[in-house]
Parts: sequence; structure tokens; C-alpha cells
Amino acid sequence: MRLASLTYLFITDMNYDNTFSLIDGRYDAALADLHTFLSFPSVSTAPQHRADVRACAQWLADKCSSIGLENVQILDTEGHPAVYAEWMKAPGAPTVLFYGHYDVQPPEPLELWTTPPFRPEIRGENIFARGAVDDKGQVWLHLAAVAALLADGGSLPVNYKVIIEGEEEIGSPNLDGLLRRHAELLRCDTVLVSDTSMYAPGVPSIVYGLRGLAYMQIDVEGPNRDLHSGSFGGAVPNPGNALAGIIAKLKDDSGKILVDGFYDDVRPLEDSERALLAQLPFNEEEFRAEVGIESIDGEEGYTPTERLGARPTLDVNGLLCGFTGEGAKTVLPAKAMAKVSMRLVPDQSTDDIARKFEEYVKKVAPSSVRVTVTALHGGDPAIVATDSPGVAAASAALRTVWGRDPLFVREGGSIPIALLFDRILAVPTVFMGFGLKTENLHSPDEHFNLQNFRDGMKATAAFFFEYARLHS
Amino acid sequence: MRLASLTYLFITDMNYDNTFSLIDGRYDAALADLHTFLSFPSVSTAPQHRADVRACAQWLADKCSSIGLENVQILDTEGHPAVYAEWMKAPGAPTVLFYGHYDVQPPEPLELWTTPPFRPEIRGENIFARGAVDDKGQVWLHLAAVAALLADGGSLPVNYKVIIEGEEEIGSPNLDGLLRRHAELLRCDTVLVSDTSMYAPGVPSIVYGLRGLAYMQIDVEGPNRDLHSGSFGGAVPNPGNALAGIIAKLKDDSGKILVDGFYDDVRPLEDSERALLAQLPFNEEEFRAEVGIESIDGEEGYTPTERLGARPTLDVNGLLCGFTGEGAKTVLPAKAMAKVSMRLVPDQSTDDIARKFEEYVKKVAPSSVRVTVTALHGGDPAIVATDSPGVAAASAALRTVWGRDPLFVREGGSIPIALLFDRILAVPTVFMGFGLKTENLHSPDEHFNLQNFRDGMKATAAFFFEYARLHS
Repeated sequence: MRLASLTYLFITDMNYDNTFSLIDGRYDAALADLHTFLSFPSVSTAPQHRADVRACAQWLADKCSSIGLENVQILDTEGHPAVYAEWMKAPGAPTVLFYGHYDVQPPEPLELWTTPPFRPEIRGENIFARGAVDDKGQVWLHLAAVAALLADGGSLPVNYKVIIEGEEEIGSPNLDGLLRRHAELLRCDTVLVSDTSMYAPGVPSIVYGLRGLAYMQIDVEGPNRDLHSGSFGGAVPNPGNALAGIIAKLKDDSGKILVDGFYDDVRPLEDSERALLAQLPFNEEEFRAEVGIESIDGEEGYTPTERLGARPTLDVNGLLCGFTGEGAKTVLPAKAMAKVSMRLVPDQSTDDIARKFEEYVKKVAPSSVRVTVTALHGGDPAIVATDSPGVAAASAALRTVWGRDPLFVREGGSIPIALLFDRILAVPTVFMGFGLKTENLHSPDEHFNLQNFRDGMKATAAFFFEYARLHS
Repeated sequence: MRLASLTYLFITDMNYDNTFSLIDGRYDAALADLHTFLSFPSVSTAPQHRADVRACAQWLADKCSSIGLENVQILDTEGHPAVYAEWMKAPGAPTVLFYGHYDVQPPEPLELWTTPPFRPEIRGENIFARGAVDDKGQVWLHLAAVAALLADGGSLPVNYKVIIEGEEEIGSPNLDGLLRRHAELLRCDTVLVSDTSMYAPGVPSIVYGLRGLAYMQIDVEGPNRDLHSGSFGGAVPNPGNALAGIIAKLKDDSGKILVDGFYDDVRPLEDSERALLAQLPFNEEEFRAEVGIESIDGEEGYTPTERLGARPTLDVNGLLCGFTGEGAKTVLPAKAMAKVSMRLVPDQSTDDIARKFEEYVKKVAPSSVRVTVTALHGGDPAIVATDSPGVAAASAALRTVWGRDPLFVREGGSIPIALLFDRILAVPTVFMGFGLKTENLHSPDEHFNLQNFRDGMKATAAFFFEYARLHS
């Protein structure tokens, strides 16, 4: 990682008036297509939505054909399929591979949505739907930009490939095999991804660091059935109490994670990077007000910005045990379940952390209950090069549209695919994202700002021209 | 409490051949009525079952009339109604007030029932339904015994009153006021209750100690909405982790409850009572096999029998937080909820313990989250006299039917009404119960042994004669 390059200013001398007119002319059609795209309940983790996921892939493939892409294929996997398409008519020009995903998170809890999650609705400056920003909206702005350039016999300044997968929200379990099987088909000079956020409204951003993920489930079993807490309480191990005890032992009061060996492979933050992160415009008061908390939480000795992007975390994602309805039911429950996710940073590895987590949980669990630990989902952390032609092109494109240099940030979320592209295709990845962190991704009322949707289309088009120029 | 009386043998010289023939002749009709009684989903804690609860009360009142009871009334409360009826045609004889409840626990989780909870089914020696043993089956065996004695112009050897309430499973919130308003109507010489268990199959039992209950809900709020655990994890307080930490601080590893002042009012177990409890035929291996656990849990320094009946407890009854479906959803949840019940022993008081619990939870909760503690349900613990004529009559009746002396036991469950009868009606209560602890009360597949149903009818009839004799 060469942080020096972060301060370089990318100036372009190209004139985009004509290109941006084409984009503006395509905007209404793009929005109409986005409505359809968002209507598919393509929830990859839910077995009952299997057919919906495939229907969404088929729609996407048909759309790729209709906007002028060629060699369109639905690439089957053991799980959900990916969609491939290409436009290879720029001999001598470099090849950009765009990666995105058409699957979405589950929409629950449904009662907290203002309008149904798969009936997209525009309210104010935003479009609301599950997947609006993560990642259907960002996928569609790309394809809409390509459509605008290819319309009426137009062309692209680069060769272009897309792969849109359907399993990102469950950890891309089949992407590795897919990339290996189709390495020749997917050969390219850079990968471009729009599945990240801008640092703040009006502040274009390029993400160079992404946390990894280890998502675990802990199941604790006590008695063989729910028991009357009066008749049996006092002598029968309670899986709810046991689970709470296990979770309480995962972190200490200073926010340090207690899993044995958890920090062994964490690359220390260098002073230069800490200085850079300190310059990010983080306003603690605004942050607290935005998420409605009275005080910032987290690991002692690190700033909020460092905690959010550059340090590993451990969070309960879900708890379920016994009687959870209204009122009182006296029950000594038979079992208890927790979902716990850990965000990882370089050079931690998902498999190693999952193994250490399981060992630690079994070590601290009371012997009177049976404990099962399952790794549900994961991805290794990544830091990508910031001095590639792709990053330079993205910087120039973003500066053209937003009138200011992009920030280079480490993002808290996980996109495990960057490492795969590096390992299997041997090319760098550029994360040029147009979401906002406040757009409720993974939450009810997910939305996407429509100005960023439009500007993202323009930045995408500009990226092609800048990349062609810088690569030549 | 006079433990000396526990060793006294109650011998009766009465001949019950004729009475028991009447009971046997009534058995089939009693079982048919029980089916109907069990078909009402009279779940008192569930607002959607309000009309079902009232329909059940109305059915019960109609039945009381049809078996020959008089002055039948549905006594309204601010919540669910109680049913009153009487037979007062034994001048000079004492008056027995029978108390029971027609409301039931929620049947969830429904998927664990072999047959639907409100469609009673006989399988083998048992009848399966929600409320089969707690308490509809035990209420009905009483009324069926009375019906057998009153049929064909028959009579009872005592005056008889019944009050069957509809709010026992939610802590009898309106029983205090009901008893006070109708103290004259309910005047009696003893209260008789069948809502407890036999110590083991074939072992008739009289319960003299009942634990109290404080049932609490803890709600923890963190951010104002579910957040993406990647974007926000590390700096935002997680209510799931916070709740686990709170619960883990409620008890230490030796099973001691850490709520400040929790044991202040616990009456120490006397050596004589410990010696008596040590004689109960508790088989640890059978107990572990029955509930499917590998080791007995609980408070150090006390035997399993003491832990189950004579010591206070603290148990998680329910947990709910974040994403609990299949698979992985990365979410930093907005809130987390726990239901925690404490079983109390003399001389702890529910209100005092609820207050201490709330204070302690707020003391140990992290300041970064908002915590609410709500008392949902409660009842003070009770120890009843064992030297009353009612206890002597019950002992004689049980010996007549089962051919052995009853055991005197402290039961783990809570029936807060004993203290009310003592305070408001100034009479002792006798707990003569016919359930078994293994009959899944409060759990799926609740059932009631039909031989105990039949023998309970006989013991009830015998009780009337023994009580009339001992009281004269």
C-alpha cells in the first residue's frame, strides 16, 4: 500500500458535455428499469426465494442483451447463478470487468418498512426498496451508463465485461470456483466494483481497505424440552443463562475481544495511516444523533474512525431463546441460539478466526450444556493498491462529476471478492461506490439517493474514458 | 410450621366402597366433559384470546348449574372473570371452598406438539392438551366428584363452594380485589386446591411450601434502527452484547444470585427440614435421564431437592434480538429483550425482589444503552400449616385411595393465592394435587395421567367425608 499516492491530484482535460447529455437523456428509462430490478425478492439466504433469485438473474440477462451487450450467459453454480455479458469491440483498448450482485439481504423485520420492501417507491430524493443501494441500484447505474453509450450505434472506449453474482449476501460461497472455471472468459485489466459508500453526502470516495467477516452461530442445548421453570428451576442448566455467559466472555469492558489469539494476525495501524484517518471529516455529535445513541462505544485506544474501519469487531447479530411473545410464560427453555459476527482486518483470516472462536466458545461454555458452533458466512479482509491505473481513472472520473478529489477510506463492511480477483485473475480492483452509510443497507427502509444514482451513471461513463486514456 | 405433624399417620375407618362405585360410574361422562373443557383456548396472557377465555368461563358456569350447584355467578374483574357456585345444604357441617383456574399457558411452540394443543387426544394412559394437568384436568376431577355425589338426589357431607379464576397464569392480578369484594360470599372453613404435583407416580403428596415468583422483562435499546454491522460495528453500542453482559452478571459460577440484597429475607433451611427433604426419594440419575441433561446444575451447598423446592432461583425464560431466521444477516440490532423469572422462598417478597432486580440491572448495565425493566407477573412465596383439619382430611383421603401415607413436600412452582386466602378469608389452604412433574406443564405435549384423574375424583370425594368427620 502506497499512501503517498493518496495526495496526488487527478486532473482531467477531457470534455464530458456530450457524454453527460446522453446519460441525462437515459435517466428516466434507467429509473424505470431499476423499479423492475428492485421488485424481485432475490433474497439469497432464504430457501423459499430460490426461484425468485433465478427469475431476477434471468431478467438481468435479458436486459444485458437488450442494451447491446453480447455473449450473455447465466453461469450456474451449486447455489444461485451469476450473470455474464460483454462488449468486446474496442481492439487495443483495455478491458474493464464490472462486478456486482443482484441478491439482497432478508427484508425482516417487515413491520418497520414504511412501504413494502419489494414494491419500490420514490419519496423525496430517494428510492426505497430492499437492495436499493446494496447492490441493485449501484449495479443498475453501471449498466444504464453502458446502455446510454451503446444506444443508437454508440460505442465504449474500452472493452467491457460484467459479472453479477447472486450470492454476495451469503458470503459468495461459489465465486471462487466460478472465477477459476471461467478465468479465460473473465480475463481483464481491472475489476471495477460499486458496492461501497461515499464517506459523506457530496464527498466522493474510493475504498482501499475492506474488513473481512466471520459470521458464526452458537447453539446451546440444555434439557430435552421446555420445562416448567418452577418445578425444574434451580437444578436444570438453563441454556439462556449459559449463552449469555458465553457472549459476555467474548469481550471485556474496554472493548477488547477475548477470543484466544484473535489479534495475532492484526496488522498494526501505521502512524501515517492513523494520521490520514484522523483527517476524515468525522463529526461525533452528528454520528451519535444520526444513529440515536448517547455515547460512542468501542475499543479503548482507538478513534471512532479507526474503530469503524480499521479495527476488528465482534457483534451479536441475533438472539433467540424460549418464550418471546407478549406477557409472561414461565419456561425453562430447552435451547438458545446466538448469531455473532466478527469484522476482520488484514492479515486476519476468516477460517483461522472461525476456528479460534469455536475453540474459545467451547472452552468458556459451562459443561452442563451442549454447545454447537457453526460458521455461516465469511470473507477475508482486503487492502487494495491505490496506485493502479484504475484508481487513477476513478479519481479523475469522480473529480469530474463532484468537483472535488475523492477521499480514500477504509470501509467497515466486507467484500471478500477483492482478494479473489487478485488471486485468480491477477488484476487489481477499484471500489468506486455511490451509496451513503445512512441509507439503511441491511435495515428496514433501505434507500438510494437518486442524485447519486444519476451522478454515479456519469462517473461510470467518465471512468471508461479516463481508464482508456491512462492505460494507453 | 410444625414439622412434627408430618410423621403422624392418618388412619380412616370409613368404608368408601359405595362412594367409589358412584365415581367409577361417573368416569366416562367426566372424561367427555374434560374434552370439551380442554378445547377452549383460554390463554389468559394473549389479548387475542379474550373472548375464548370468557366463553370457557360461561361453559364452566353452565356446567356447575347442570351438575346441581346453585347460586352460580360469573364474577367480573378488570381482567378475565371468575366462576362461582355453591351447594349449601349441609346445615352444621363445615364449608369447603375449592379454588382452581380455567386459564392456561400459551401453547407455543406449536410445532413441537404431537397433536394440536386445543384438540384433546387420549394416547396410552394420558390425555394430551394444553391445560390437561394445569389446571383444567384437576379442576374437572373435583367437579366430577361433586357431580357423582349430587346425582340422583344425592348430597355432600359438607357445604361446598367453588371459585375458578381465569388469571392464574398471569399472576392473579385481580384475585385480591375479588376476594375482598366477595369475602362474605366466599366465607368457608378451609380452602382446597388441586394445582400441584404428586412427588412421583404412585406417591400421593401434600404440598406445604410453594415458591413465589418475580417475572421480569429487560429491554435494552441501542441505535435507533437496525444497522449494517460492517459500516457501524465497532463504534455503536450493541444491545445484544449489552443484554448478555447484564444477564451474565445476575448469577456467579457457583449459582449464587448477585442481585444486591437478594438473599436478605430468605428464611434459612432448618436442619430438621433438610433432614426431611433428604428423605424424599430423589434419584439423580433418573432425573437427568428424564430431562435429558448430563449434569445437575444449581446453587453450591444445596442438594438437588433443596434447589428444586426450597431455594430461590433465577432463570432466563426468553431472549429476542436482531435476526433470528435461517442463515446469516449482518445486522447491528436496535434492541434486545430478555424475560427473566425468579422463584422466591419465604420470607422474600415479590415487590421487594422486583425493585432490587431493577436497581441491580440498571447498576450493571453499560451507560451507552438505554435499559427498561418491567415487572410482568409475580406472587409471594408461601408455607402453609400442616396441622390443620384440612391437611389431616387430605392425608386420610389420599391414604385411602393410594394405600400409603402422602409425602409432605415443598414445590418449586408458585401459587400465590395461598397467602391471599390466609390474609383475606383467614382460613388455611390445603394443596392436594394429582399432577406429575413430568406431564409437561407449560410445555408442548402437556398431558394428564387418566388413572390419577380417576383416583383424584375418589380422593376428592373421600376428602369431603374425612373433613366432615374431623371437623365435627
